[in-house]
This record gives sequence, structure tokens and C-alpha cells, in this order.
Amino acid sequence: MPAYTAPVRDIQFVLHDTLEVSQQDIPGYAELDPEITEAILDAAGKLASEVLAPLNLTGDQQGCRLENGIVRTPDGFKDAFDQVREGGWPALDCDPEYGGQGMPRVIGLAIGEIFTAANMAFSMYQGLTHGAYSAIHTHGTAEQKATYLPKMVSCDWTGTMNLTEPHAGTDLGLLRTRAEPQEDGSYAITGQKIFISAGDHDMAQNIIHLVLAKAPGGGEGTKGISLFIVPKFLVNADGSLGDRNAVTVGSIEHKMGIHGNATCVMNYDGAKGWLLGDLHKGMRAMFTMMNEARLGVGVQGYAVASAAYQNAAAYACDRLQGRAVTGAATPGAPADPLIVHPDIRRSLMDQKSFVEGARALSSWCAQLIDRSELGNDSDADGLVSLLTPVVKGFLTDRGFLTTIQAQQVFGGHGYIEEHGMSQFVRDARITMLYEGANGVQALDLVGRKLAADGGKPMMAFFELVKRTIKELEGDEDLKTGFLDPLKSASKDLQSATMFFVEHGMKNPNAALSGSYDFMHLFGHVTLGLMWTRMAAAARKALRDNTASLDFYESKLATGRYYMARQLPITATHLARIRTGSDTVMALAEDQF
Amino acid sequence: MPAYTAPVRDIQFVLHDTLEVSQQDIPGYAELDPEITEAILDAAGKLASEVLAPLNLTGDQQGCRLENGIVRTPDGFKDAFDQVREGGWPALDCDPEYGGQGMPRVIGLAIGEIFTAANMAFSMYQGLTHGAYSAIHTHGTAEQKATYLPKMVSCDWTGTMNLTEPHAGTDLGLLRTRAEPQEDGSYAITGQKIFISAGDHDMAQNIIHLVLAKAPGGGEGTKGISLFIVPKFLVNADGSLGDRNAVTVGSIEHKMGIHGNATCVMNYDGAKGWLLGDLHKGMRAMFTMMNEARLGVGVQGYAVASAAYQNAAAYACDRLQGRAVTGAATPGAPADPLIVHPDIRRSLMDQKSFVEGARALSSWCAQLIDRSELGNDSDADGLVSLLTPVVKGFLTDRGFLTTIQAQQVFGGHGYIEEHGMSQFVRDARITMLYEGANGVQALDLVGRKLAADGGKPMMAFFELVKRTIKELEGDEDLKTGFLDPLKSASKDLQSATMFFVEHGMKNPNAALSGSYDFMHLFGHVTLGLMWTRMAAAARKALRDNTASLDFYESKLATGRYYMARQLPITATHLARIRTGSDTVMALAEDQF
Repeated sequence: MPAYTAPVRDIQFVLHDTLEVSQQDIPGYAELDPEITEAILDAAGKLASEVLAPLNLTGDQQGCRLENGIVRTPDGFKDAFDQVREGGWPALDCDPEYGGQGMPRVIGLAIGEIFTAANMAFSMYQGLTHGAYSAIHTHGTAEQKATYLPKMVSCDWTGTMNLTEPHAGTDLGLLRTRAEPQEDGSYAITGQKIFISAGDHDMAQNIIHLVLAKAPGGGEGTKGISLFIVPKFLVNADGSLGDRNAVTVGSIEHKMGIHGNATCVMNYDGAKGWLLGDLHKGMRAMFTMMNEARLGVGVQGYAVASAAYQNAAAYACDRLQGRAVTGAATPGAPADPLIVHPDIRRSLMDQKSFVEGARALSSWCAQLIDRSELGNDSDADGLVSLLTPVVKGFLTDRGFLTTIQAQQVFGGHGYIEEHGMSQFVRDARITMLYEGANGVQALDLVGRKLAADGGKPMMAFFELVKRTIKELEGDEDLKTGFLDPLKSASKDLQSATMFFVEHGMKNPNAALSGSYDFMHLFGHVTLGLMWTRMAAAARKALRDNTASLDFYESKLATGRYYMARQLPITATHLARIRTGSDTVMALAEDQF
Repeated sequence: MPAYTAPVRDIQFVLHDTLEVSQQDIPGYAELDPEITEAILDAAGKLASEVLAPLNLTGDQQGCRLENGIVRTPDGFKDAFDQVREGGWPALDCDPEYGGQGMPRVIGLAIGEIFTAANMAFSMYQGLTHGAYSAIHTHGTAEQKATYLPKMVSCDWTGTMNLTEPHAGTDLGLLRTRAEPQEDGSYAITGQKIFISAGDHDMAQNIIHLVLAKAPGGGEGTKGISLFIVPKFLVNADGSLGDRNAVTVGSIEHKMGIHGNATCVMNYDGAKGWLLGDLHKGMRAMFTMMNEARLGVGVQGYAVASAAYQNAAAYACDRLQGRAVTGAATPGAPADPLIVHPDIRRSLMDQKSFVEGARALSSWCAQLIDRSELGNDSDADGLVSLLTPVVKGFLTDRGFLTTIQAQQVFGGHGYIEEHGMSQFVRDARITMLYEGANGVQALDLVGRKLAADGGKPMMAFFELVKRTIKELEGDEDLKTGFLDPLKSASKDLQSATMFFVEHGMKNPNAALSGSYDFMHLFGHVTLGLMWTRMAAAARKALRDNTASLDFYESKLATGRYYMARQLPITATHLARIRTGSDTVMALAEDQF
């Protein structure tokens, strides 16, 4: 069975050495000193290792069961959820007005990584609740907030997002669920929703469904869509639970992975719902959840990869097979451990350099969100909006490939379910598909985000890269290993951006044929930037400290690997983008 | 449930337009005229579509069960296996002396693709039998051949390969299974083998296990290994079945995929076995099976990808979601089909161009084997030996990624098991792991094959590329789209080869740090070569024919896509290779 240890030291390095959180001029950041964050991370790590991780394989093997209309979670999930609740973890980064602890998002993200790495399917029950909390917090009336948020902050009630219908996934304009206004000001919601994660379960007293539906008078397509709060149990005026609402679970899907999370078909048969936010402006409210969810899914991508990597590294040190090509490393043993082989190293370095770069990128985005939301910084908002599809699309694609690489280290044993490596792969696979399949992320990036606000966020990103390089230019040791490759990769990104500016309007197919490559090109540059920042932080720490040399040097070495072996692919992505749509769109439909 | 239609026209194009089989100076090839091969392919396609493919999902869902020591295959497998047997399919490319039909390997491979695409887990029962047949055919005594081959050619008896032990996978030198010589000339085999595909089942009268074991007097490591024939039921002098041998199934593994094939733990408790080939020369006999198996696994890689691609293309034409960016393609419908979107096209073109290139490469290798075995051509043998790790490693890596891309086209629906896309992914995953994990293929390629025979096969490959380009230089239409990119990619391969020649001896870690990239670099060049040959064949057909313009033009367009969008990655692989081992080997073990 796979084990998991929270990488507290690595997270601390991102928070304090790299992002220098306690020195940031962001409300709430001043109190984030290293001792406090370490204590929080240690406590979360203990829960993750001792309670959540041991349930991961159980959850996969047992899955969820639908019994008499109620979803039963795998053995041990309910107890574990109680422990998460009792630890106050769901409240960590929620509004103190509703019982939250008011910590910044950057800490919430780190805890999210740890819990997800230990048990992704389990952590989704909490994660989706946070998304629904945010939507109500942003768009709800004072009464709605008072009614729902305290219970959701504590996770006594959990939340869901109800978007997809059988015939309407990405294209929400096609959805058919209706909302009929009632005399009491509520709406009667009728329709079927599918792929509803945590749609039902036995771990909370109530479930608050946020449901997209069409109310009369709203126009065609997405314009007519509104968002509704539809609780499983109606809530009485005194806050106690009342009647069961007319929402039922049709079935649980049989999925490739995340078996421990119930993915439900939900049937709404005139269920009582209340408008959340403005009528016919449901897409906007939905995007509050969605953007948060997309960053969260990016975190899932590298979090599961991180757990898979840990187990691959341990296996590589343990499993004896073959001899080092330079001569036996352990002559007394029957064979050397796998880790002596250069190709195993290559694989582990791919994994390690991705996971650590992804962690830094995601944490930086969380910091930008904090800066935007707590500090009202619209530039930060523009930047994180630009980066969201990159984080979601790139980190989940690469995160999934990392789980594949980790599984590969186990050889044939990786294919056997009891080792748990298959589960990492199967669980991670969903991250490329849900909350907007990654092709949709690429479309969002090239079709919307690139030109948003007159291209200001994109220009700001290039400016940031330039400034980072300029600031560090004096450090000769960073030049060859970091600054030169970053400069070169960033130039590829600029050339690609120019290609889209030139072709976007007059030949949109040419632009969109390169959207996926652009997302990956952008992703590599962001990780190159983060590794450069981490390298600079490690250099600084090495100058300042005499202790932990080993740790900081490993950061530099891992970063050098990424810059030397991963970043050069930006040239290939650029070459592909420049071929435009000619070869992509050449065939007629019946030639496929 | 996914459907499958054998791509008969595409296979015919490879056999006749591209490889020009009936004009080759290889024994048995003259009779391969297009009418005959089409009839064979059609018949195989019918069986695949109507019998094997419908059982694929069943096999996945039911899996195999161990009941009272006997493995039960999923419902319908036994009937289907009878139909395969009755159709004479297993005998197709076997020796007529033992009941085979004596067709060349190139046809056997095409049928293997079709059956595997329809139902990989099912087809392995037959595939492994063929491997064991080849080992006995090559290394067996006249008596052994007479005893075992006729029944194996018909698949009345099936075969297995028993190599792996719990602690010994790639490193067979570690194996512990013992063979004690008996007075009657047989050996008593004792030990445990794991990961034995088709290790037991209820579809054949007998199972012939080929087992690696150590007999007394051999040296240490792999030198002491011999190969033994260990039948499940002993065979009497008259060919009838006698006593049950002392070999039992310990358990069936719970795997990520290929659930329809029983992967067994086999326990040998003094089982009666007979030496196959020379004492202490078991590795050589094993490699007869293994090399055939590696090519077969390469075929599995693209065959499953081919089935996944077919279903993705169909779904993309059927599923309505969003509108074409250039304006509604089907204004009367509520939305356009997915295939209007450039990024969906890109994905489908990636899939299609890989599958068709891989088919051509594998078929060419089969032709080389025929030329080597039937025509006693040692140059062909050298070339196919060089290409074997590329076919196994590259085609399974890319084949797996192709199944991922196909699954991705389905969006969230791809994650739901009933659509069958998850099964393609899970089934394809094993191909990267078994018969030598792909890292081992890369090691074999760089560490052994590259320098084999003084580098002659590698030089022959470069010569072939050069000759192909030279022959086609007069065709201006091929120049930009095919010859130039092939020339450039081949130059990258030459530079990489030079890097290994320079560093291989003095710094083996530097060479092996780039082995995986080299395997992929080589793979892309081989597919570039095959696409160039296919493009030339399509051009010729367009000059000669007035019919089927559409078909041949789609080949050219698909090839142009591959050359423009896939081949440029050779530059990245070369860049990675050139970084050597510095960043790969930088960390100490405890820094992972």
C-alpha cells in the first residue's frame, strides 16, 4: 500500500524562501511566519499520513454504493471526515464572520495539496463545499449567507456544483433544466444533471446543491441561465432541517477512478430552489465557483503526482534489479537498487522537478488571488485570470504524465492494483477532463485570456519575466543554468503570442490549431520562471545560512534539471503553432 | 459500447502500395496479391467486429475467476476462441509441417492487429501461444516439435512464457526457480513465477508452459539459466493427455486492465519439465520468444490506439457541442459536432497519423523478419533487431498516449467505464510495462543494438533514409512536406548517434541518461520515413489511378500533418540527449 508524507519542508521553502509571504503587503500575510505555517502544515500532514492516506486504497476498492436512495461512502470515510471537521480544516481560509479562521488562500492551497495527495477522492467532498461556499459568499444575499455559510464553513453541510446535463457539457447554452418561479419567491427546479461529484453521501447532515437552470424570460443559450441554491433538506427559519427536497440520486457512475467520491446522476423534480445572484446572470456566479475549481483541479494534478513520485522514489531506492553501468554500487547485495540506473534517475527527476515547480506556480497563483481579493489589486486579478487555464490544463496534463512515470518505475508491479500506483494514474486522469476539459482550457487561454483587457495581463507576465531576469543578472551562477534558458523560452512564448495576435482575427482556425501547444508552451515558461525564482531563493539561503546546505543545493540541482531537460520543448511547441491550421484542418469529416 | 471496424483499406495500402509485398523477392510473397490479402483481412475483420469486439467490455467487467484451482474466463470467451480456432487463424503463419498455413509473418501481423484492436485481452491467449510455438519451432528437438507443435498451431493447446519471479523482473540473473535433473532425462522444476499471462484458463485442453530455471552446473547470473517445457498435462507417447503435472495457479492478479486475460502466479512443485534448446543457454531460447513478443507488444500499442481512435472520430462527428469559430457549420442543429473545433482536429490528426505510421513501421518490420527468416538475409535480421526496441518502446508509449487523446475527445464521458474509452487506456498501459519495461528497451537500444555488429545496422538505417530521400528528390511536391523534414530529423538522429559514440565508453551514464530520448527520437524518424514512403506510394497511386483520389489524398494530408507537427520534436530530444548526465545524476539518493 502506498504511503504519503507531507512535504512540509518543500512547502515551507515555497512559502517563505520563494514567495516570502510574511513580507508581502497583503492583509493577513504578516502573521504567516514560518513557525505558524510549519505547525499548521505538520498538523495537516499528520492527519493526511495517518488517517486519509490509509483510506485511499480502501476508497478505490470499495467505491460508493447507492442504497435505498442514499449514497454510502467507503468504510472509514465518515470517521475521517469527522476528524477533518473536528480539526477545523474546512474553516481554515473561510470568512470569520461565518465561523472561518480567515487565513489567506495561500495556506488553504497548501493544505489542499496535502489532503488531496493523501486521498483525492475523499478530499473532493470538502473541496466542492469550498467552491459552493465561495459562490454563496460572493453572490448570496445576507440572509442566504447567514442561512448556509456557517454550516458549510464547518462542513456540517457540504456543497455541490450542478452544471452538466447528458447532452450539455462544455456547451452550457444547451441545458434544459427549468426553473419555474413560485409565488413564495422560490423556484421549482426540474431536470437531470450528471457527473455531480459528491452529489450525495452519508457524511453530512445536509447537502447544498448549486444548480444551473433556465428561468423564463432569459433569452437563448447561456444568456438565459441562472444559478439556484437547492438544499437536499429544506432549512427552517430557525436553521433546523425541514422537509426532504425533491432532489434524488438517479445512479452512481462507474468511473475509471476517484471511486471514493460519489459521482451522481441527480434528478430534480420540481425541487425548491432559490436564486443565487442575479436572474439570468448565472454564468457569472458559476464562474466564481469554476475559477476556484480550476485552480483546485490544477492542485489535484500535481498533488496526486507528488504522492505517486514519493512512492516511486522509495521503490527505486528499495528494489534491487541490475547493476550500475559504472560498476556495482552495492557489491555485497545480489543487485543494485533501481535508482543507480540513469534512466530511472531521469524519470524521477522529471517527476520531482515538475511537482516542485507546479507547487510554486500554484502557490504563487494563490498569493495573487489573495492580493486581488484581500488587497483589491486588479493587476493581480488579471494575471491570475490569465494563468488559471494554464494551471488547470498544464498542471493536470503533466501531473497525469507524472503519475504514469511513477507507475513505470514499478515495472510490471505498477500494473497490479494493490501497489496503488494504478490508482494514482486512474484518479489523476479525471483532472484533465472535468471543470472544462483541457482543450477547453486552451481555447479559453487563446480565445479569451490572451486578449483580455487589451492584452495587459499577458504584457504584465512578460514584464515580470524580464524583471526577474534583470534582477538576477548579476549572479553568474544563475546565468547559464537558469536565466539563459528562461530568456530563450520566454522568447518562444513571445513569438507564439505574436503569431496569435497576427492570425487570431483573420484566421481563427490557425490560432486555435495551436491553442493546446500554446497552453503547454506557456506552462513550461511559468515553471521555468518559478524554478528561476526558487533557484534565486536557494542561492540567497545558501549565502545567508550555513545549515541545510544539502536541501538548498538539491533545489538548485532540481531546477537545473528542469531548465536543461524540460524547458527546451518550448521550441517544438512554437514550431507546431507556426504551422497554423493547414495540416490540422486538411481532411474532410468523412476522411477520419 | 465501443465498436470496431477493421481498417482493411488502410492495411491493404501498407501491404500493396507501400511495401509492394507481391513484388518482393521473399519466399511466399509472390502469392500475396491484393485480392487474396483482402479476402483474408475481410474475414478477420468480420470475426473481429462481430465476435471479438462485443466481448471486450464483458471481459473487462467480468475478468477471470479462479475456481477450485482452475481459471474461468469471461462469458463468451470460450465460444469465441472456438471460432478463432475453427477459422484456422492461429495456424495462419505457422509451419505447414505442423499444420500451419505457411503464410508470411507480414500477414500474421495484420491479423494480429485486427484481433488485438477488437479485444486485446482475448487475443493474448493466442499471441502467447505463437511465441511459445516459435521457441519450440526454433530450439526444439524433432520429437518435441512433433509432440507439441501441431496442437499449438491449432491452439488446441496454448502456451505461456514463465520468466518473472517476485524479486526478479528485468534482472533474470536473480531468479531462483530450480531444475533438478531426473533419471528419465526430464527435470523437476520448483519455484514460483509471477505475471504469467494466460497462465491458466478453460479454453484449451492443455497449456504448454515455457519456464526459465536454473539447472545445476551453470554459472552465476543469467549464465546458469535454461529453458524448460512444462506441460499442464503430461503428454503420453501416443499424444493423448496423461497426468496433471505439478504446476498450479496460486492466484490471479488484480490488474489495471486486460482483465479478460488471466495473469497468474504459477507454482511449480517438482513439476516435470524437459529442456528446450541447450543446457545453460536458456537466455538465447528465451530471446526467440521475447523478440517476437516485443514486436507483438508494439503492435498491441498501436492496435488498441487504432480502436480508440475509431471511436473518438465517430464521437467527434456525432456529439454536438459549441459552434465552429468560423461560423455555425450546421445552423439548423442546436450545436455543431465536436469535429469542427480545431483542437479536436489536432487531437484526431495526432491519433490518426500515429496509428497509420505505426502500422506501416510494424508491417515493414514483419517484412524484414520474413526476409531474414524465409530469405536468410542477415542484413534484414540486423535491421529488425535494431528496430525491435524502437517498435516496442516507442509504439507502446505513443499508442498509450493516443488512447489518452481518444479518451479526452469524449470529455467527462470518457471517464465513465461503459463508454469503453477507459478500458482502452487501462489495457494499453500494460504494453509499456511488460516484455521489458520501456526504459529497458531504451537501454537495449543504446547499450546493445546501436553498436551491434560494429554499428552496421545503424549505418544501414541511415543509408536507407538517404536513399529514400534521393530516390524521391525529383518530386517537388514531396520536398517541402516530406523530404526536408525527414532530412532534418534524420540529421538530429545522426547527431545523437554521434553523441553516444563519443560518450558511450568513457561516460556511460551520459549516454544512458539520453537513452529514452534516443528511443523516441529514433521512433519519430522511423515514422517520418514510413510516412515519406507512404506519401510516395500515394503520389504514385494518384498518378496511376483515377479512382480513390480521396483516399490517397487523405494519406498525403495525414502524412503532411505528421511531418509538420510531430517530427519537429526530434530537435528537443537531441537537445536533451546533449545535456548528458550532469543534471540527471546530480542528486544523492537521499535527496529524492
